[in-house]
Amino acid sequence: MKKWVYLFDEGDPNDRALLGGKGAGLAQMTQAGLPVPPGFTITTEACNAYYENNQKFPEGMWEQVLEALKEVERRTGKKFGDVSNPLLVSVRSGAKFSMPGMMDTVLNLGLNDEVAKGLIQLTQNERFVYDAYRRFIQLFGKIVLGIPGDLFDKAFEEYKEKVGAHYDTDLTADHLKEIVSIFKDIVKKETGKDFPQEPLEQLRLAIGAVFNSWNNKRAIDYRNYHKIPHNLGTAVNVVTMVFGNMGFDSGTGVAFTRDPATGEKKFFGEFLFNAQGEDVVAGIRTPLKIDELKEKMPAVYDQLVEIAKKLENYYRDMQDIEFTVERGKLWMLQTRSGKRTAQAAVKIAVDMAEEGIISKEEAVLRVEPNQINQLLHRQIDPSAKVTVIAKGLNASPGAATGKAVFDAEKAKEWAQNGEKVILVRPETNPDDVGGMIASEGILTARGGATSHAAVVARGIGKPCVVGAESIKIDLEKRLFNVNSYTVKEGDIITINGTTGEVILGEVPLIEPELTPELQKLLSWADQFKRLQNWANADYPRDAQKAKEYGAQGIGLCRTEHMFFEADRLPIVRQAILAKTSEERKAALDKLLPIQKEDFKGILKVMDGLPVIIRLLDPPLHEFLPRHEELLAEVIELRITGKDPKALAEKEELLKRVEEMREANPMLGLRGCRLGITRPEFNEMQVRAIFEAACELKKEGYNPKPEVMIPLVGHVNELKVVREQLEDVAKKVMEEQGITVDYKFGTMIEVPRAALTAGEIAEYAQFFSFGTNDLTQMTFGYSRDDAEGKFLFVYLEKGILSNDPFQTLDTKGVGRLMEMAVKEGRATRPDLEVGICGEHGGDPDSIMFAHEIGLNYVSCSPFRVPVARLAAAHAALKEKQAFRDK
Amino acid sequence: MKKWVYLFDEGDPNDRALLGGKGAGLAQMTQAGLPVPPGFTITTEACNAYYENNQKFPEGMWEQVLEALKEVERRTGKKFGDVSNPLLVSVRSGAKFSMPGMMDTVLNLGLNDEVAKGLIQLTQNERFVYDAYRRFIQLFGKIVLGIPGDLFDKAFEEYKEKVGAHYDTDLTADHLKEIVSIFKDIVKKETGKDFPQEPLEQLRLAIGAVFNSWNNKRAIDYRNYHKIPHNLGTAVNVVTMVFGNMGFDSGTGVAFTRDPATGEKKFFGEFLFNAQGEDVVAGIRTPLKIDELKEKMPAVYDQLVEIAKKLENYYRDMQDIEFTVERGKLWMLQTRSGKRTAQAAVKIAVDMAEEGIISKEEAVLRVEPNQINQLLHRQIDPSAKVTVIAKGLNASPGAATGKAVFDAEKAKEWAQNGEKVILVRPETNPDDVGGMIASEGILTARGGATSHAAVVARGIGKPCVVGAESIKIDLEKRLFNVNSYTVKEGDIITINGTTGEVILGEVPLIEPELTPELQKLLSWADQFKRLQNWANADYPRDAQKAKEYGAQGIGLCRTEHMFFEADRLPIVRQAILAKTSEERKAALDKLLPIQKEDFKGILKVMDGLPVIIRLLDPPLHEFLPRHEELLAEVIELRITGKDPKALAEKEELLKRVEEMREANPMLGLRGCRLGITRPEFNEMQVRAIFEAACELKKEGYNPKPEVMIPLVGHVNELKVVREQLEDVAKKVMEEQGITVDYKFGTMIEVPRAALTAGEIAEYAQFFSFGTNDLTQMTFGYSRDDAEGKFLFVYLEKGILSNDPFQTLDTKGVGRLMEMAVKEGRATRPDLEVGICGEHGGDPDSIMFAHEIGLNYVSCSPFRVPVARLAAAHAALKEKQAFRDK
Repeated sequence: MKKWVYLFDEGDPNDRALLGGKGAGLAQMTQAGLPVPPGFTITTEACNAYYENNQKFPEGMWEQVLEALKEVERRTGKKFGDVSNPLLVSVRSGAKFSMPGMMDTVLNLGLNDEVAKGLIQLTQNERFVYDAYRRFIQLFGKIVLGIPGDLFDKAFEEYKEKVGAHYDTDLTADHLKEIVSIFKDIVKKETGKDFPQEPLEQLRLAIGAVFNSWNNKRAIDYRNYHKIPHNLGTAVNVVTMVFGNMGFDSGTGVAFTRDPATGEKKFFGEFLFNAQGEDVVAGIRTPLKIDELKEKMPAVYDQLVEIAKKLENYYRDMQDIEFTVERGKLWMLQTRSGKRTAQAAVKIAVDMAEEGIISKEEAVLRVEPNQINQLLHRQIDPSAKVTVIAKGLNASPGAATGKAVFDAEKAKEWAQNGEKVILVRPETNPDDVGGMIASEGILTARGGATSHAAVVARGIGKPCVVGAESIKIDLEKRLFNVNSYTVKEGDIITINGTTGEVILGEVPLIEPELTPELQKLLSWADQFKRLQNWANADYPRDAQKAKEYGAQGIGLCRTEHMFFEADRLPIVRQAILAKTSEERKAALDKLLPIQKEDFKGILKVMDGLPVIIRLLDPPLHEFLPRHEELLAEVIELRITGKDPKALAEKEELLKRVEEMREANPMLGLRGCRLGITRPEFNEMQVRAIFEAACELKKEGYNPKPEVMIPLVGHVNELKVVREQLEDVAKKVMEEQGITVDYKFGTMIEVPRAALTAGEIAEYAQFFSFGTNDLTQMTFGYSRDDAEGKFLFVYLEKGILSNDPFQTLDTKGVGRLMEMAVKEGRATRPDLEVGICGEHGGDPDSIMFAHEIGLNYVSCSPFRVPVARLAAAHAALKEKQAFRDK
Repeated sequence: MKKWVYLFDEGDPNDRALLGGKGAGLAQMTQAGLPVPPGFTITTEACNAYYENNQKFPEGMWEQVLEALKEVERRTGKKFGDVSNPLLVSVRSGAKFSMPGMMDTVLNLGLNDEVAKGLIQLTQNERFVYDAYRRFIQLFGKIVLGIPGDLFDKAFEEYKEKVGAHYDTDLTADHLKEIVSIFKDIVKKETGKDFPQEPLEQLRLAIGAVFNSWNNKRAIDYRNYHKIPHNLGTAVNVVTMVFGNMGFDSGTGVAFTRDPATGEKKFFGEFLFNAQGEDVVAGIRTPLKIDELKEKMPAVYDQLVEIAKKLENYYRDMQDIEFTVERGKLWMLQTRSGKRTAQAAVKIAVDMAEEGIISKEEAVLRVEPNQINQLLHRQIDPSAKVTVIAKGLNASPGAATGKAVFDAEKAKEWAQNGEKVILVRPETNPDDVGGMIASEGILTARGGATSHAAVVARGIGKPCVVGAESIKIDLEKRLFNVNSYTVKEGDIITINGTTGEVILGEVPLIEPELTPELQKLLSWADQFKRLQNWANADYPRDAQKAKEYGAQGIGLCRTEHMFFEADRLPIVRQAILAKTSEERKAALDKLLPIQKEDFKGILKVMDGLPVIIRLLDPPLHEFLPRHEELLAEVIELRITGKDPKALAEKEELLKRVEEMREANPMLGLRGCRLGITRPEFNEMQVRAIFEAACELKKEGYNPKPEVMIPLVGHVNELKVVREQLEDVAKKVMEEQGITVDYKFGTMIEVPRAALTAGEIAEYAQFFSFGTNDLTQMTFGYSRDDAEGKFLFVYLEKGILSNDPFQTLDTKGVGRLMEMAVKEGRATRPDLEVGICGEHGGDPDSIMFAHEIGLNYVSCSPFRVPVARLAAAHAALKEKQAFRDK
């Protein structure tokens, strides 16, 4: 016969899969000789067998429960249903992974009318007994019998009102007795049957209900969200009740072995006298600091602290402990690793490693990479009172305060006058980038996590809230309304990009810093990781930040961002609109010195480290006036007939813009296709790069430029462009009489490039996966369109489990990458391969990048610490998996 | 020592690779005892060795030439350079594959001043000798010495004018002698040296010149265009001269064993008395019909006919023969398989198979699939008298008649007024595409086979002639001149895209039809092929045509084309703009009966054959008014303030259109993404399909609908949509009380679908490769943008060797397809897999489809015959390759 039930001193405390987390903890504490009320665990296997058996208990399970119950009766000297000395139990769920509040628990099971009377005899505490009884009926009714909980709540509140009770504690024993009667009536009315009086029947029903709760909707949703498999099942723990509500020599509490908010090494907790566990959690009464326990019950306190230390040492992690004191005796009800803030997680991990409790590897693994993200941005002072007026998507973390402005031009203007501004737009487009850079933060009413605003904001490290759909922007009146509030241009607002909140007025912010603990943790991480961490940076100031955050190179410098700046855009337009190659070259000649200075700046900051500079990539019409606006102007000029000269000019410009328009610019004339059809741009850029590098080298620096040719899909594209540009590079070095280290390589962002990587590697010294574009084309999703139009539906319906623009799709996009790495390296064993694009900062994607053997991942500077930690996790987890094999 | 030189009786006539086509033919004829002037062949290996050896003869070659020359002297009894009995030779190129006119030939080599005199002694024909001499200097000067040919031509014409000679034959021996002298002066002046008098020196130079001509620009271009490898090299044939210009008992001609235009089995040829070969080709004198030879020289004629028959039987193909009669004796100079029209190719192949000369398999392989394409387009009535005024490149097949217009706008305007127009432009650019679509055909003065005009015209299936350089277009005066003709805007012209001809005025056109011979050939093809041929058809009339042309199923019925019809579009718009699901359903209910009739029509025509119906695919905004037009209207209404009500309506519509606009509609909300976000469309369509099928089945038909879900990229999309729609299907069948055979399947057109085909096949009963979209996304090329904006540059520069939208890119797109077939069938062994999209009609792509084991290829009805033949070719070539292994 299979063993379905384990007494707490029987089970293997390390077998969390079988006993669940709670059961394993109770077994551990019991076996360590700690004061745990006797009880037993019904295994997760029993739960799974229950589901396989059409939701009936598997053979032998109930018999084993009865047997274990007998043993508990023997140990406690109490008997289930015995009026003279009754055993009461709690029935608690407990799965392998903690799913707080998702599944059900029943307390005080074993009570019935007779037992209640006996218990009163025994305790001489009628109030306590009826309070316990009414709680039992309420919980059992709701959880086991499926009666809507608010029927009980409503009746309870009505009764309190009737008798003029303000707090629950104002209720007398008689009151509670009457409530028991009212609750039993509710059960009768709702189920058509009396409340079950037979304790074994209660137990049987409660165990089934806990099994069932494994598959309630919120548990399934929780598992989906946290990626917990659905086939693990939950264990059920049956534990002898101990009572914290037996008077003021009793009580209940939770404690942490270290401060879960700061990580400080000090015993921390909350406690309530004369209460049951749920009172602490429910927040009806304000719990006391644990110090009060020390004062009132020093012996119990000391015992608790000692136990806590023992548990922390045993589990080698900060513990979250539940305990009850029953008439002066301490009982341990649960221990588990405690949840903690990011700051605490870092501090605890580093402290424990330095205390010698855990190794540095373990310390690194204890902190989730995404957790530290919030430490790297300005935050709202947690002590501040705030008025949240709207909520959107937390698109780029950090908080910002400033005056609301409604267009990018004004944002720049005000910012130049020293004002702090928040740019508020329905959505943003490339024209707004200058204004976004000038602003403290960005707020949009539309768009998703990968909308233009979100992507650019993350790129430039500005706090950003997108898709705050409740705000109604009126661009004409220059204000937005949200609920009853109106925010006019110039009014101060605060946004919290970490939470998605929009807040009225100014709020005190606290500056981010790499705390010494975090720096230490990251320096340990660097020792373990195999992947390098590079950063995407378009300006010297970004490169500087990246280096401070530990970047080992620049994986992507987007030269076109430099083109958008106000002093350059007119020249760029001249170059685009030029009718001859000569005209174009003349315009580009003016850009050359400017670009050279840009490149010099970045190469200087990154002295000695590789800097990948991508040649001009976006469709040229992005640099031209917007078609619609131009069209509107032309139509207006035509109708009014006011200014024939302006009309002629605008018409000419409109014609050129129309010539350059594309049905699907994402798949149109951009990337290396530009370089092939209009080589002058690339030539100017390469000249600027190499003049910059040569000049720096003469000044004693060690520049390492790597020229990246974008959007290659066929080896011949790369061959033609590289040959032409390497000629320019050599010519510049000859002119300057000096040589610099350089590489030529390509983005792998078109599926065909990945599919023919073996050929392409013949002409590429490096590959950089442009995972954004590769995802777009592999899925056929236009990022600009997908998020708002169907991707959210896909995520909602579970068609996709992740947004592939945030976490790499390993089956499709990843498969292409794996092929490309393998075949590229077969051609060129020393091929340098990395990721640029937001995936380079996403821990799951970094894990994958590690697995397929990339050299580096590159992401925005602010995510570099996250990525460093993720890279270390990847390496350590691989090592672990290897050890486990 | 390697053997570089073979006498005609030494070489292996089957080794065309070594001897070249001409050399192999001469060897064959010599060895068959036919009268061939003695000579020898220098091998293609020698040519390749020459290039490897820095353009010097390889070791031993020249010695072998001298030795072979001695043997020729022995056999002819003449001696090279011997004044008393001189040997003259021709030096002719001859590669493995015929490259007509691309490489060089020198005649009468061995002549010099002394030899000329001797020859006069010998022949007593001074005029002949000086004519031969001046031809030799002229050809040798041009080809071997590199002197511009027009220097000779001009001098010749001036001399003729001076002496008042109208025809060449008006020139006397003295005239010709003087011309020899003038030509020698030209040589002296241009090269600084005397014309080389030493025959062996002449021979050495001429052989080198022929080798060099392998790599002249036009030869390289020709090979590129015809995909002939560049490393084959050319052989050089040195042949004893025989003279057709030794008087009126001499002559020269070409003959075909069957009529190369119609394929009729009759001896066919042209002949000139007293002439050398080039006179026939050059068209200076009008050649006589071969019948005249029969009359004048019956014995020679009979001998020729007998030889022709022998050659055709030996080569088992229609032969193109060159011969010369020298003083009544017949000499064979060349035999090769003759070029022929498509019509002739079909007839000859079928006739020869029926005559038992070749097998049916060979007959099928004799006709290139693309060749019969021209039989399936409108052609100029062969009996019509036409005035060809210019010739360009045959860029897109078929003939078209219409009024010449000189800009795209006017083309659209006139076409809207019901005029048929031919767009005439110096060249086209992306702005002209609208006008091209509106025109019957396109004519350009500039550009090659991959120019913008050519690429677009083939894409839209319009006849097109490009690069007709002799037409001089005057855009201001709106006319073109060509020779003495002037064509003004509005004048009618005809273009023949199959031949490249430009014809004055209207010409009767004949509609394409399947001739009995072609039908027979295709029926044989059907016996050999493994792939099925299906067709893409949106309407019953197309399905009817497809069936006539041999389609075995409908691979793609695009339901949305039905949506565009005038009576339906308003209902479709209602459905799209509906604000609630109910509103949408109400509109769709009106469409249901219409769609049902559409489907009934197609399923009825295809009774018993599979019909794949694709659910709604394109972005919905394609059905709405165009954004720009609407915007213009709104702006105008706003400025004028004339009609506030209309303004409000238009503004509302504009808002909706703007909401639906997408940055990259190709990658946006379309395909199954529509079905998931707006399920009502799909549900209506599936209901229409199954109601149609059930009703037809009740009428005794056997409908086989297959429902295709487009743009799937993730298995869950298919799972969700299929489950929902199969429910609808089952419900309809239940309502109707009848069941029909059906399948549910998906397009594989998103790269990710191919990469995860193993999963997707769990829910798909068939895969249909949407190779157009798959190409778009795998390359990252928007077809709408790429063709006109950069693809033509890529083809011109040789970055791509083919337009991937016309011929499948096997390395990238094909690799994905191969993975998908393999992994899909691993999941579901009976998975039905095919191609829909224009690649299904492209012979190279069909070969690939055969190789990777598809079940069928589907293309437009008019290409089905081509595809049938190509499918047979694929199967037969595979068989051949297997045999050859």
